[in-house]
Amino acid sequence: MVPMNGAENALAEAVVPTPRAVPGAGVPAERILAETRELTRPALRQAVADCPESCARPVGLAVGLLDGDGNPVDGGGKMFRAALALAAALGYRDDPRPGVAGAVAVELLHAYTLTHDDVMDGDRWRRGQPSVWAAHGLNVAILTGDVLYALAQHTLAQHTLARRDAAGGAAAARYLSRAAVDVTYGQAQDLAMEPRPFLGPEAVSVDEYREMTANKTGSVIGAALAIGGALGGAGAEQTDALWQAGRHLGVAFQAVDDQLGIWGEPSVTGKPVDSDLARRKKTIPVLAAVGSRPELAEAIERFQPAGLPELARALADAGGHAAARDEAAAQLDQARRMLDRAAPRPAARARLDALIDFTAARTA
Amino acid sequence: MVPMNGAENALAEAVVPTPRAVPGAGVPAERILAETRELTRPALRQAVADCPESCARPVGLAVGLLDGDGNPVDGGGKMFRAALALAAALGYRDDPRPGVAGAVAVELLHAYTLTHDDVMDGDRWRRGQPSVWAAHGLNVAILTGDVLYALAQHTLAQHTLARRDAAGGAAAARYLSRAAVDVTYGQAQDLAMEPRPFLGPEAVSVDEYREMTANKTGSVIGAALAIGGALGGAGAEQTDALWQAGRHLGVAFQAVDDQLGIWGEPSVTGKPVDSDLARRKKTIPVLAAVGSRPELAEAIERFQPAGLPELARALADAGGHAAARDEAAAQLDQARRMLDRAAPRPAARARLDALIDFTAARTA
Repeated sequence: MVPMNGAENALAEAVVPTPRAVPGAGVPAERILAETRELTRPALRQAVADCPESCARPVGLAVGLLDGDGNPVDGGGKMFRAALALAAALGYRDDPRPGVAGAVAVELLHAYTLTHDDVMDGDRWRRGQPSVWAAHGLNVAILTGDVLYALAQHTLAQHTLARRDAAGGAAAARYLSRAAVDVTYGQAQDLAMEPRPFLGPEAVSVDEYREMTANKTGSVIGAALAIGGALGGAGAEQTDALWQAGRHLGVAFQAVDDQLGIWGEPSVTGKPVDSDLARRKKTIPVLAAVGSRPELAEAIERFQPAGLPELARALADAGGHAAARDEAAAQLDQARRMLDRAAPRPAARARLDALIDFTAARTA
Repeated sequence: MVPMNGAENALAEAVVPTPRAVPGAGVPAERILAETRELTRPALRQAVADCPESCARPVGLAVGLLDGDGNPVDGGGKMFRAALALAAALGYRDDPRPGVAGAVAVELLHAYTLTHDDVMDGDRWRRGQPSVWAAHGLNVAILTGDVLYALAQHTLAQHTLARRDAAGGAAAARYLSRAAVDVTYGQAQDLAMEPRPFLGPEAVSVDEYREMTANKTGSVIGAALAIGGALGGAGAEQTDALWQAGRHLGVAFQAVDDQLGIWGEPSVTGKPVDSDLARRKKTIPVLAAVGSRPELAEAIERFQPAGLPELARALADAGGHAAARDEAAAQLDQARRMLDRAAPRPAARARLDALIDFTAARTA
């Protein structure tokens, strides 16, 4: 990470949790992710191949297998959520196969939320490719999101019937649909927050932001862990602990993202450092800073990109940076406690920790 | 039905199947539908009440419990699909309760497809109320559809786990997701057909139209029957026969709709009689008529509302009306054969027949 200046660099480093040594297993996160892609991609390719002609290109684009013109690419997401599902499935049995259906379902769920989010946010780019609506138009993007989520549920339903794992499959399907409900609730909460002020009785609180983030970001991660666990043989309480762990992880990663959105380095994050501020997003650091120094609300409303260094420093001085760091640390801590409760076997836990540390650090 | 003129009235009547006497049960369709609404509405009200504040109004509007301003209404759909689910569930056991979760899931699925369809088709009105996008904007309409489908899957998942009916629940969930996949495929096929010509190598065929309709319209009806059956205790082959029956019913009802879209009476159908022609929709009667008299393609391209009587007569003379009638009759016949194979108990079969006859006739 390239520093904006010395002081802010020190702050930015402090917010990123130190990767923990992985005891025993020692499989690096990059290898876990590569294995995940190898296990998951054939099923995603099949889903694209099964689409009618008019669906295949946008669906392929959404899952990262095709570019905007329909040509195959070796891109796609890093499949972090799929990797969590596979790792969680290994927590209770040695057979990785039950986790694959869950990994595919979770990747489809994730691609669905991104496809509809890009429509709602008007974002034209995604993973270096045009977003689905930018490449194929609004109606096709709505349909593509719809089919992705339906395929996610269908993947689990087919798996459940084929493997006669009715109990695990039903629990997995319930976490998938619960995540899909919560994601839409979170997105609705986010849209409803946009016009609200930073100050006064209508102001957005940190608690509301945390709940919105747990819904919007955490529930897909929670679904990944819970679906993997349920398919892998976890009990009901273990599966629920996995779900809760994922909700906390979502808030932790978002807090890191929020911090990088102000004090991060665009060439590393791939995101203009002033875009959250330019959108007047009510993120953790901003809400916390305005909470302690209300006069900052006006500075945010008046924000222009040229004023970034000054505003970033003022937000840090008002405790915004420390608040994001503390939030990330506290949420990661709670996530780990929930993983303790879920009690996957040590090798699987080591994989989960490697993925979590990698992602918390990689976001920097 | 008020005739456009004598000859066309006779034709229009001929396309509507004669209601069959319901042996034994004798419960009129209106009463079955009223019972269905009574059993299903509390769960739909609960789904609305469980939404966060920012979701409740659009979700309530989508399921017909609220008007565009958020006031309660006694409207909503007639709940035909929910009634099919409940009737099918009674086909194998006496307990109506398992069918209720299926009925609610199917109504949520139906509301989801209507909400997104209205966005894609730009339709501003639905059941005498503004459509969700017209009342609440595009982004909220996308989210509302998303949450409705997620709630549909979640309803079945919760039911499955609560009642420990893992096998029936898994099969029901699979038909729900399969219908959701097929609906989006059908909608994509429909959108792709729009710009294609009536003539030449790129022309839309009746077979393609039939497949699109079975996907877009038939699969929700198929899901209603199959989900009801699966939850009610039908075996795998019986459940699949119910699904097939619903796909045929969808095509039959659409063929009747297509015929009424040209020769029907707007004050009865609630739809301007020239809207399908004005949109150059490639419906069964139009495709059949152009197939036998290619010169009609040009008349359709040039169509103006004032020319309706003349064009309607020409399409009828070219066999379009007869084709729609024959298609509806053939599809109803196949649906009944599939219901024979599903072999629900006689009282439940009588209910299904009453609902089907009522809908085929009522559409007129």
